[in-house]
Amino acid sequence: MSQPIKFKITKELNNTLGRVGVISTPHGEIETPAFVTVGTKATVKALTPEQVKSTGAQVVLSNTYHLYLQPGADLVAKAGGLHQFMQWSGPIMTDSGGFQVFSLGEAFGKGGVSKVAKKTEPVNFDNFISEDPYTDQNLPDSVSQLAKIDNDGVTFRSHLDGSEHRLTPESSMAIQHKLGADIIFAFDECTSPQASYEYQQEALTRTHAWAKRSLDTHLINNEAANKQGLFGIVQGGRHQDLRERSAKIISSMDFAGFGIGGSFNKDDLGTAVGWVNAILPKNKPRHLLGIGEPEDFFDGVENGADTFDCVIPTRFARTGTFLTHHGRLHILNQQYREDFRPIENDCRCYTCQKYTRAYLAYLFHAKEMLGATLGSIHNIYFLVNLVARIRQSILDDYFNEFKRAFLTDYNH
Amino acid sequence: MSQPIKFKITKELNNTLGRVGVISTPHGEIETPAFVTVGTKATVKALTPEQVKSTGAQVVLSNTYHLYLQPGADLVAKAGGLHQFMQWSGPIMTDSGGFQVFSLGEAFGKGGVSKVAKKTEPVNFDNFISEDPYTDQNLPDSVSQLAKIDNDGVTFRSHLDGSEHRLTPESSMAIQHKLGADIIFAFDECTSPQASYEYQQEALTRTHAWAKRSLDTHLINNEAANKQGLFGIVQGGRHQDLRERSAKIISSMDFAGFGIGGSFNKDDLGTAVGWVNAILPKNKPRHLLGIGEPEDFFDGVENGADTFDCVIPTRFARTGTFLTHHGRLHILNQQYREDFRPIENDCRCYTCQKYTRAYLAYLFHAKEMLGATLGSIHNIYFLVNLVARIRQSILDDYFNEFKRAFLTDYNH
Repeated sequence: MSQPIKFKITKELNNTLGRVGVISTPHGEIETPAFVTVGTKATVKALTPEQVKSTGAQVVLSNTYHLYLQPGADLVAKAGGLHQFMQWSGPIMTDSGGFQVFSLGEAFGKGGVSKVAKKTEPVNFDNFISEDPYTDQNLPDSVSQLAKIDNDGVTFRSHLDGSEHRLTPESSMAIQHKLGADIIFAFDECTSPQASYEYQQEALTRTHAWAKRSLDTHLINNEAANKQGLFGIVQGGRHQDLRERSAKIISSMDFAGFGIGGSFNKDDLGTAVGWVNAILPKNKPRHLLGIGEPEDFFDGVENGADTFDCVIPTRFARTGTFLTHHGRLHILNQQYREDFRPIENDCRCYTCQKYTRAYLAYLFHAKEMLGATLGSIHNIYFLVNLVARIRQSILDDYFNEFKRAFLTDYNH
Repeated sequence: MSQPIKFKITKELNNTLGRVGVISTPHGEIETPAFVTVGTKATVKALTPEQVKSTGAQVVLSNTYHLYLQPGADLVAKAGGLHQFMQWSGPIMTDSGGFQVFSLGEAFGKGGVSKVAKKTEPVNFDNFISEDPYTDQNLPDSVSQLAKIDNDGVTFRSHLDGSEHRLTPESSMAIQHKLGADIIFAFDECTSPQASYEYQQEALTRTHAWAKRSLDTHLINNEAANKQGLFGIVQGGRHQDLRERSAKIISSMDFAGFGIGGSFNKDDLGTAVGWVNAILPKNKPRHLLGIGEPEDFFDGVENGADTFDCVIPTRFARTGTFLTHHGRLHILNQQYREDFRPIENDCRCYTCQKYTRAYLAYLFHAKEMLGATLGSIHNIYFLVNLVARIRQSILDDYFNEFKRAFLTDYNH
């Protein structure tokens, strides 16, 4: 078997875990640190692949849970895989489906009921709830919000029609093999931040067993193993001992790279990421799942994370919230109706090059779809470009200055 | 005053009123016959201007009624006019607002109540009712559906908030001057196809008086008259004598071109257009308002129409109906779920070059906005390209053969 995913470190950030590198995949290279654009349902919402590419985006992450339910992995396979189906020619990642399954509702473990909070966790846990004013993605009340977990896998109900489904490490791998992304993830249990320590311990044991089963299932499939790299996922919530134990165990398996999942305290996200990355082998890439806000990237990078995915840019855009160097701009606010400046004066994105805040405000007031498109282009550009500038600042030895300047502006 | 709109006939279609020509505007040329893409609310729904341009579209028509209500003509003027506001650098037309005002509900004339049918008239009269699944444009029940007409103008209620407004020939001109389109239209009364002959006569007299007032208002504004061309509108419904009377009277005024408005019998649209164009001066362009279906273009062109606008391509696209050489394709039909061909095999549009019916079907089933974008690109390309091919067939002397071949395929 040839390893389809390679990682090369170009430069390290002095006295930290941070590094600049290049991940090579069968569909091209990813210069890291990099922001990964989320295309949940085999489309980055409201954008063509060319528009996504125009933001500087190098890689797209789609969600296994959603694609498994609709249109189904077999259909995507018949179409020639995700790249061909959605016409994104660059690298693609798919998550394992675990996160969404657990986000659906309550997870019952042997050690007691642990509620998976959907809306109380700002950093994570709201990945699949679309606030899109143009689509109809809110969960119907009629869907029984239950996911039943056992040591073999998870049984859950579809948020689309309430039908019952089951995911196991083996079936998650089979689905991700059919989808055909360059980087795929092991099936893991994502616990609630409110879960007890005891429950998290138990869940972690399950996650590690599932990691092994995912890896075995992957490596036995030669065709898949030759063109898809499997990343193992480190869990452990907010507990240092659990995070470190998880990092050690996952490190011991022959994964192509690693995902760092689960919940973090917003204030010390970097610390928790650092616990893990101090242990993970340096020569493999690390993806921080579902993070984040602009300020999280600095902490993540300093603590050794290479890639980040988050729905924020497109989800925010669809409700008229734009990311700027001075924080969030809510375009529906009255003051922008006659503001003929771009979202940001010196932004080089397509939207800022051509359109005024007044036009964008109008499009949102008039509920015109183009508003979501233009806002998404700006927000993705903003995050992709921010992480690219963090990368450049490491290469050119001004990371700390850049971090200080950016965060000063952003929080004022 | 220099005339901002020029028209040059390149070739005529033997033994008919048809012709090939070029309309010159301050924002570029329009090679005619041409399909005019509708961008009702200062955006072609779901598309960037570049995507619109990629279809071959030469010119966009926006609606005065909608822009007057939201965001208001003054705001558009402050933005530098419609071209700047929406970033469409090519020619733009605006209609007069009359059609939408009358479409809103019942028009009361002195001669009696004549209902303006909104849904019973397939060719016309449904221009502003969006069936867009992604937006919320259906009329709220609470809006009083009344438009009150007198010889001076029309009082009506906004479909957005029920507020009362008034349009007159003078205010329609003032609004269109602020919007700044290259080609603007005289304010006219658009009668219902169910209106009595007597009422239509009376309305026609009003339309002619309003045409004169529109023209006077336009010509007195030197700045506008130097960069915007005013088209007079011929009405007269389905009555030959009224159509001919209208054509004679409107011809006698110094308009830069003409619009042909109102309702037609689907079966002899060409005949009615021919009545009018046999009278209108040859050396000025003629726009057939709100038409049409693919088959209408052949009849329109043969009978001397130069340009056509219609919401069909984008409205159909948003509900998953695609235009093809073999008629309409409804992408939500079960049979397309696993159909890996493009919408049309030999179509050169962006969508058909890249995406399968299966992907498009999936996007519509999943309610993903990209479906509307890709479908709109195909449908606009289809109509723009169809009219461009009609043009070429006249230039190369095979119009009749092309018409026969196209209609044979299309109706089977």
